[in-house]
Amino acid sequence: MKHRYLDNMPLTEAREKFLALLRNNGFTNKTEIIPSAEAFGRITARAHYAKICSPHYNASSMDGIAVRSEDTEGADERNPVILESDMFTPVDTGDPLPEDRDAVIMVEDVIFSDDGTAKIYSAARPFMNVRQIGEDICMGDMLVPSFTEITPTLAGALLAGGNIEAQVLKKPVFGIIPTGDEIVSPKENPEKGEILEFNSTVFSGMLKEFGAESIVYPIVPDKKELLKCALGKAISECDGVLILAGSSAGRDDYTKDIIEEAGQVLVHGIAVKPGKPAVLGASGNVPVIGLPGYPVSAIVIMNEIVKDVVALYYEKNTLPVKKIRAKLGRRVVSSLKYEEFIRVTLGKVGDGFVAVPVSGGAGVITSFTKADGILRVPQNLEGINAGENVEIELLRDLGLIENALIVTGSHDPVIDEIADIMKGTGTGFSLTSTHVGSMGAVNALKAGTAHLGAVHLLDSETGEYNVSFVKKYFPDGGVKLVKGVKRIQGLMVQKGNPLGIKDFSDIVKGTYINRQGGSGTRILCDFLLNKHGIDKASLKGYYNEEFTHTAVAAGIKNGNGDVGLGIYSAAKMYDLDFIPVCDEEYDFIVSESALGNENVKLFLEILGSDDFRKRAEALGGYGL
Amino acid sequence: MKHRYLDNMPLTEAREKFLALLRNNGFTNKTEIIPSAEAFGRITARAHYAKICSPHYNASSMDGIAVRSEDTEGADERNPVILESDMFTPVDTGDPLPEDRDAVIMVEDVIFSDDGTAKIYSAARPFMNVRQIGEDICMGDMLVPSFTEITPTLAGALLAGGNIEAQVLKKPVFGIIPTGDEIVSPKENPEKGEILEFNSTVFSGMLKEFGAESIVYPIVPDKKELLKCALGKAISECDGVLILAGSSAGRDDYTKDIIEEAGQVLVHGIAVKPGKPAVLGASGNVPVIGLPGYPVSAIVIMNEIVKDVVALYYEKNTLPVKKIRAKLGRRVVSSLKYEEFIRVTLGKVGDGFVAVPVSGGAGVITSFTKADGILRVPQNLEGINAGENVEIELLRDLGLIENALIVTGSHDPVIDEIADIMKGTGTGFSLTSTHVGSMGAVNALKAGTAHLGAVHLLDSETGEYNVSFVKKYFPDGGVKLVKGVKRIQGLMVQKGNPLGIKDFSDIVKGTYINRQGGSGTRILCDFLLNKHGIDKASLKGYYNEEFTHTAVAAGIKNGNGDVGLGIYSAAKMYDLDFIPVCDEEYDFIVSESALGNENVKLFLEILGSDDFRKRAEALGGYGL
Repeated sequence: MKHRYLDNMPLTEAREKFLALLRNNGFTNKTEIIPSAEAFGRITARAHYAKICSPHYNASSMDGIAVRSEDTEGADERNPVILESDMFTPVDTGDPLPEDRDAVIMVEDVIFSDDGTAKIYSAARPFMNVRQIGEDICMGDMLVPSFTEITPTLAGALLAGGNIEAQVLKKPVFGIIPTGDEIVSPKENPEKGEILEFNSTVFSGMLKEFGAESIVYPIVPDKKELLKCALGKAISECDGVLILAGSSAGRDDYTKDIIEEAGQVLVHGIAVKPGKPAVLGASGNVPVIGLPGYPVSAIVIMNEIVKDVVALYYEKNTLPVKKIRAKLGRRVVSSLKYEEFIRVTLGKVGDGFVAVPVSGGAGVITSFTKADGILRVPQNLEGINAGENVEIELLRDLGLIENALIVTGSHDPVIDEIADIMKGTGTGFSLTSTHVGSMGAVNALKAGTAHLGAVHLLDSETGEYNVSFVKKYFPDGGVKLVKGVKRIQGLMVQKGNPLGIKDFSDIVKGTYINRQGGSGTRILCDFLLNKHGIDKASLKGYYNEEFTHTAVAAGIKNGNGDVGLGIYSAAKMYDLDFIPVCDEEYDFIVSESALGNENVKLFLEILGSDDFRKRAEALGGYGL
Repeated sequence: MKHRYLDNMPLTEAREKFLALLRNNGFTNKTEIIPSAEAFGRITARAHYAKICSPHYNASSMDGIAVRSEDTEGADERNPVILESDMFTPVDTGDPLPEDRDAVIMVEDVIFSDDGTAKIYSAARPFMNVRQIGEDICMGDMLVPSFTEITPTLAGALLAGGNIEAQVLKKPVFGIIPTGDEIVSPKENPEKGEILEFNSTVFSGMLKEFGAESIVYPIVPDKKELLKCALGKAISECDGVLILAGSSAGRDDYTKDIIEEAGQVLVHGIAVKPGKPAVLGASGNVPVIGLPGYPVSAIVIMNEIVKDVVALYYEKNTLPVKKIRAKLGRRVVSSLKYEEFIRVTLGKVGDGFVAVPVSGGAGVITSFTKADGILRVPQNLEGINAGENVEIELLRDLGLIENALIVTGSHDPVIDEIADIMKGTGTGFSLTSTHVGSMGAVNALKAGTAHLGAVHLLDSETGEYNVSFVKKYFPDGGVKLVKGVKRIQGLMVQKGNPLGIKDFSDIVKGTYINRQGGSGTRILCDFLLNKHGIDKASLKGYYNEEFTHTAVAAGIKNGNGDVGLGIYSAAKMYDLDFIPVCDEEYDFIVSESALGNENVKLFLEILGSDDFRKRAEALGGYGL
């Protein structure tokens, strides 16, 4: 087993050196000539000037009669002028002005007689109701400068000015080469060890957003000769190449070597997290980039490096990313070794924005699908405390973020169903949920970082849910408790219940899968362990924590554990056996200041709707 | 000649009634199933749930060795544990964890011996360095709710969760039927009376921006039977139909009739300017809209009606248009009969934004290509005074607007060349110019509505250009005069000089084409008329005003007049004869507060550049 170490070059240095290399190597745009009628959204390669005037002749701007203005002199209300039939010509809007006429009188202002004459009550000025040649565009005028995006109206103006074709920048084409022995095209029932290749889809989409096109090449196994071949083909066919995975320094990581052999490697290892194992190189004027295998790492490199490479192609500076200030909702710990990119959800709570870090490592694509923004933690910081004011780079439109309802706390699939119903209302409101457990909900409401908290907190003394916790943690009020759903908690075990688990005391028969500290289910577990006199330390798997009911169910289904507490709907989804333990109340704490918000009102409305009731019934195990 | 009158229904009422009609008639979205790998940018038609977990098996998250955590118990720096060769399995990142192993030790932390054993210095916790099944996505989890745009990462998450296909909303298809006897497809050398059909290009582009697709049908002449046929075909093939022109009430305007015969007409005439002669109707569940023939009128109807029809298809509210407050740079006069849509340019001058109305009527497409925003003047207002604070709806990104350098005043093609060079720098800076004449530049600088003013103002007493005007109008300073170019003013006459014009006094021999009041060229004209003792009233064409040198040249070329004052480069463009009258100095007044702006610095840099010098030389008639 060989092992090599990577560079740890600061991001800014890596980017600048790489762009300088590409510039030196002659990486720049190509142009093409396309019909102007299809040029919408493209970037002009040069200034375009009008070849003809628009209108290109004197045109009537009204339906009426074309006259010589001289012939109408003196006409007024008292002294109408009568024009003989050879002194006027009927014209419609857009008709050319006849040679010897210089004005148009609107049809409404003319009285026609049966003898073919026309009576008018006011004189016509020269060029009255005439669109003179060049009124819109004069030949020679610059219609659009170079390096300008062609809007629909600019496309129209190009045609109006006689530019049937436009010279535009060719979109750069990036070849994407997925690699890896274990990588397979997406399928519905993959075998163990098969990793679904979805990264090329993510990066194709991102390239499209950057203004580039892509060719996705077939998956190449970890064989150096095959990889070299594939790279050579892509270099010859594309303006840039992305090699997916194999960019680290492991046993089968050939990306660095093959780029070196095809040209040169400038950087191997960037001081960012996630994203470190990236390779930046080039073959002549074709940039070749080795992206890390983990999707989140690769997305960081796409945003921080590849986006700038596309901008260099278009000879433009990248537009600054939009940023907002927000209060950090949870502490962030960071490494001094790397610049870190923390994905956060954003919400407008009260007057300001709140940023809550999304959990999940470099392999967790859903940490990006849920994220509204990025918090950059510089290399020289060890972390940032909750409550601090931070700068967030936006990943989506601020309008969407402002409309989002922030629900935090305990996880339940019904929250997602409410989110879905909300989306279907067409109101523009959406729901962002984070799973931090019931106590997390209490803390978020206290800190003012969420609109709603989802809780199921059992008071072990009274046996009552939620009420006493609200009294205890919000002694001064400021929140309302809204009834949610009743749901059945119980033990999930493998189909057929092989260990013969009958009640909670039987959990010692197998390996347990637990929920994270602070979750209502964890509190219930600890309450029951105590009640049955079971010692935590002796319970195998007690420290194996998952964040959602479905994650516990998935673990049991797969044999990572034998038993875990969870809700009925999760057991049903995974076709597990279920031993009911108790009914619990899953409620919502609402900040009183948010009760008037339209999105909160909509949430409560949906909670009481028929649609929601039907969906909860379909999930199973709920009472309303 | 028949003539009918139009309704004048307020916009809001027309829109609401129309959308209600379409809703009643069952106009709504259709769905389709497409590969998730191609779903980027599409809208989900339903919630999508994970069909498999991701990862769908326990996977090593490191290159290393897979072990049973039990076998490693007790290992520490002082007491290494030696694992026999059958107690560990080498694994790479992504490899499945072998059946009987539950943890991975990083390769860096293992010392391999030649005898096949491995030595470790720390114990492994269960599931250490293992991506447990469902770490990213659990089967059953909602991956994306309905009515949600699929981002690149969401497309990836769909695939990772086993959704190889996605059910998305079909993009609505709008048929576009251009009509009119005089309408022809764009060409380079149209005949008189041929109107180039570029509206379908503009509206296709706009539909794309709205999220719809389009089919552009062949141009149909003003024959009722042919129009009926074309409409019938489009209704059967599309989700909506736009008929271009023929929507008014003139001789050949059949749009209303054919929509009525195909279904119903709800509104004919909306109280907006431009945009009044629009027809809103439907054939069953297919909306059929008659758009006004003038492009700017039609664009207003596209933005105010068609955009909402597309939103109705997608069952969403249209997102509110982004707005900013700005100081109005020029008075706007409006009609009490209509809600008016005034196109404005925007610029950041000093601390705030300035909105300057763009001149040009409903037929002037360039009034939209130049516009950065829309000022809506409600029906009940007669106008808005210069300097008032108004709300502007943005047509382009605020970032682009903030970077724009606002140049106003006298027109010269060199300004466009500077704009083009500026675009090519890739700095993101752009130049917005408006042609309001030299005195307009002085007024704009005084009012703080421009960064730079372009002037060529002759002091008739001293014969000197610009300097005395700056002293007179800016007695307290606050501006700097920057030398621009010298240029030759002269008389433009038709090729061969048929009227034998030798000097300015000869202009009485023909019809003059003048420039607008306040322009430097107009001031020069009045000075010369005075000097030569020519009476304005006796000069034929004195009141025929144009706004640019090229517009005067185009008028002379076409015979709308015989002679006009203008610069050499305009005469050259139009292949006209040119009789030099004087050299003038075309300079720039710069607000001192703007001198430090990056875009102003860039402008001045370009003004002194070789590239600019070469371009001015190519235009001809300039000295630097």
